[in-house]
Amino acid sequence: MLSFKVTHRDPETGARAAELATPHGTVRTPAFMPVGTAGTVKGIAGWELSKLAPEMILANTYHLLLRPGVETIERMGGLHGLMSWSGPILTDSGGYQVFSLAARRRLDDDGVLFHSHLDGSPHRLTPENVVETQSRYGVDVAMVLDECLPYPVEIGIAETSVARSVEWAVRGLDRAAGLRRDPGRWGGGLFAIQQGSLDEGLRRRCTDDLAGHDFDGFAVGGLAVGEPSEALHDAVAMAAPMLPDGRPRYLMGVGYPEDLVHSVACGVDLFDCVLPTRSARTGKVFTSTGELNIKNARFIDDFGPLDKGCDCPTCSGYSRAALRHLYVSREVTSVVLLTVHNLTFFLNLMRGAREAIMAGRYGRFRQRIDEIRNHRRRNLGP
Amino acid sequence: MLSFKVTHRDPETGARAAELATPHGTVRTPAFMPVGTAGTVKGIAGWELSKLAPEMILANTYHLLLRPGVETIERMGGLHGLMSWSGPILTDSGGYQVFSLAARRRLDDDGVLFHSHLDGSPHRLTPENVVETQSRYGVDVAMVLDECLPYPVEIGIAETSVARSVEWAVRGLDRAAGLRRDPGRWGGGLFAIQQGSLDEGLRRRCTDDLAGHDFDGFAVGGLAVGEPSEALHDAVAMAAPMLPDGRPRYLMGVGYPEDLVHSVACGVDLFDCVLPTRSARTGKVFTSTGELNIKNARFIDDFGPLDKGCDCPTCSGYSRAALRHLYVSREVTSVVLLTVHNLTFFLNLMRGAREAIMAGRYGRFRQRIDEIRNHRRRNLGP
Repeated sequence: MLSFKVTHRDPETGARAAELATPHGTVRTPAFMPVGTAGTVKGIAGWELSKLAPEMILANTYHLLLRPGVETIERMGGLHGLMSWSGPILTDSGGYQVFSLAARRRLDDDGVLFHSHLDGSPHRLTPENVVETQSRYGVDVAMVLDECLPYPVEIGIAETSVARSVEWAVRGLDRAAGLRRDPGRWGGGLFAIQQGSLDEGLRRRCTDDLAGHDFDGFAVGGLAVGEPSEALHDAVAMAAPMLPDGRPRYLMGVGYPEDLVHSVACGVDLFDCVLPTRSARTGKVFTSTGELNIKNARFIDDFGPLDKGCDCPTCSGYSRAALRHLYVSREVTSVVLLTVHNLTFFLNLMRGAREAIMAGRYGRFRQRIDEIRNHRRRNLGP
Repeated sequence: MLSFKVTHRDPETGARAAELATPHGTVRTPAFMPVGTAGTVKGIAGWELSKLAPEMILANTYHLLLRPGVETIERMGGLHGLMSWSGPILTDSGGYQVFSLAARRRLDDDGVLFHSHLDGSPHRLTPENVVETQSRYGVDVAMVLDECLPYPVEIGIAETSVARSVEWAVRGLDRAAGLRRDPGRWGGGLFAIQQGSLDEGLRRRCTDDLAGHDFDGFAVGGLAVGEPSEALHDAVAMAAPMLPDGRPRYLMGVGYPEDLVHSVACGVDLFDCVLPTRSARTGKVFTSTGELNIKNARFIDDFGPLDKGCDCPTCSGYSRAALRHLYVSREVTSVVLLTVHNLTFFLNLMRGAREAIMAGRYGRFRQRIDEIRNHRRRNLGP
């Protein structure tokens, strides 16, 4: 079981600093979770990840179920053994990936049948078995099975889908309760997922239906699925504050630095996104003065670090010119170096947010980040 | 300028332990140099390489000349700046790569004209400009320009080629002497390269012609170019002991663990090879009990480390089953993890050789390695 305590509240915004105690340590929020889809943060050895010191990391039930499979993971000592990571781990339930990756999906009220995108083998996810799978992975936080709606979506379809997701969530919680009655079997928590597209009434109804149950946390799901940035920000401002104040709030799959900073002000505690890691593989770098692409020819003669204000080993050891050379030479090392930097940027951003909240000056912190974003937009276009 | 001192000699074999003082530190031999062709050991951040603590690393004049170019490297603070590595660096002259990679080569007595394999741009290497280029890289050890002969080769062609390589070496030394008269410009050393295919007389003549000049070290070149393993071992036993005893001996581009162990007994001090790094990218792993390929299905259920006797972080943190999963999932992290292990294996092998020499028991050390090799051959075939 988890315990959660809000320790500081920003006087001007909904931002809060909190501590979420898990079997593998305490997660100090707001926190960004690096994504380790298939059992590793791409390019980053476990000992390197430990030095970056994220509060919690995320892995993917769907990918790991297909390969190497739950039994193998269990025998490795769980996901912690596979990933060589001793801190907290959250897994998503696999629902999102089934709807975005798997072939020949068949959905019914009892779950979803699909075929692996790797080898076509058939698999079935149910509200119960996703919880059981995650418990066998030994994760600190499991997510319920839900249906992630496309954007845009008709309201009628959304209503039916949300009702089903709520029912699945409650069934998942029953299964979790059963597992926890078996002493020593699983000490993790289960988060429910609020859905409802961009419809406030539907999000409210979904929240009301979920909040009566004893979930360990609540996520905002179904955002960052193609809607414009303004719509995302409005939706977070609408959806996040509805969620129970006394439980962690997790915004799934979001996002850009300015999205995180905005969402923290709306009371979100946890984030995950592939952006820092995936961007590193295309040469995109996040810095305290905006984003850049290391491929750009202007970096041939730029002998400064990626980000003067950054304390990561990439910025201590390598110039932009060296990093550009390694990137255009297609050296794997450049993936490692840019990933380490980008993750440091996201982790430090959330550390900075937390410190600002604790010091009662989150409004100023947010304003500074917004100024940088606006400056960048003026210079680079939208 | 370099200084070299043999500190220990094995009583039974030609093996010796020595210290080579360079501008960036002392190289304790026998030593294996990890290869960082284009300015990085593939997949390994500079800070990670420093933890592996190789005595010296190798980079490639040819690749770096084409990209990012000597002027850019100079402005980065030399190769040490590009590579984020503060220890000794040796570069090969580029001759070997011109003969193996470049397009539309034209060789004359004054050097070689070639076209870049990247963009077709024309470049010229001369005995003088390769030394100058390497001095501008700021390396600790530069290599002379030589012609690397194919295997097998007609003796007449070999004789002409060796005579040219000797002349080039001496011209390179003259240029190095000129550069060193300019105080503070370059403190590195220049190694000559013995050629002569598998012909003892030719190797002898080449050595005699080179040894009268004040080179800082001597390499055995032109081996590991396709000859069988027995021929390689015989050639090293014939060629290495000819080289001046009071200078470092470097066997270029070799090789397998058993090749290194054999060659140390022949009096070789320095090695480089892509084997540990390139093998990591194809899943091949070196261990104290032989080689394995991590792709193999028998590792699905193998929850032990790659090598029980290994002190690398990969072996401390990951099981064979986890490494297999990451490799078959094509995770970049697996390149990092297997490279760290393989390099540790080669570096520890040479550390073990050095300790054995210092303790006067190199014969026993070599016998143990040979037993493992023979055991492996019996089990896995040649």
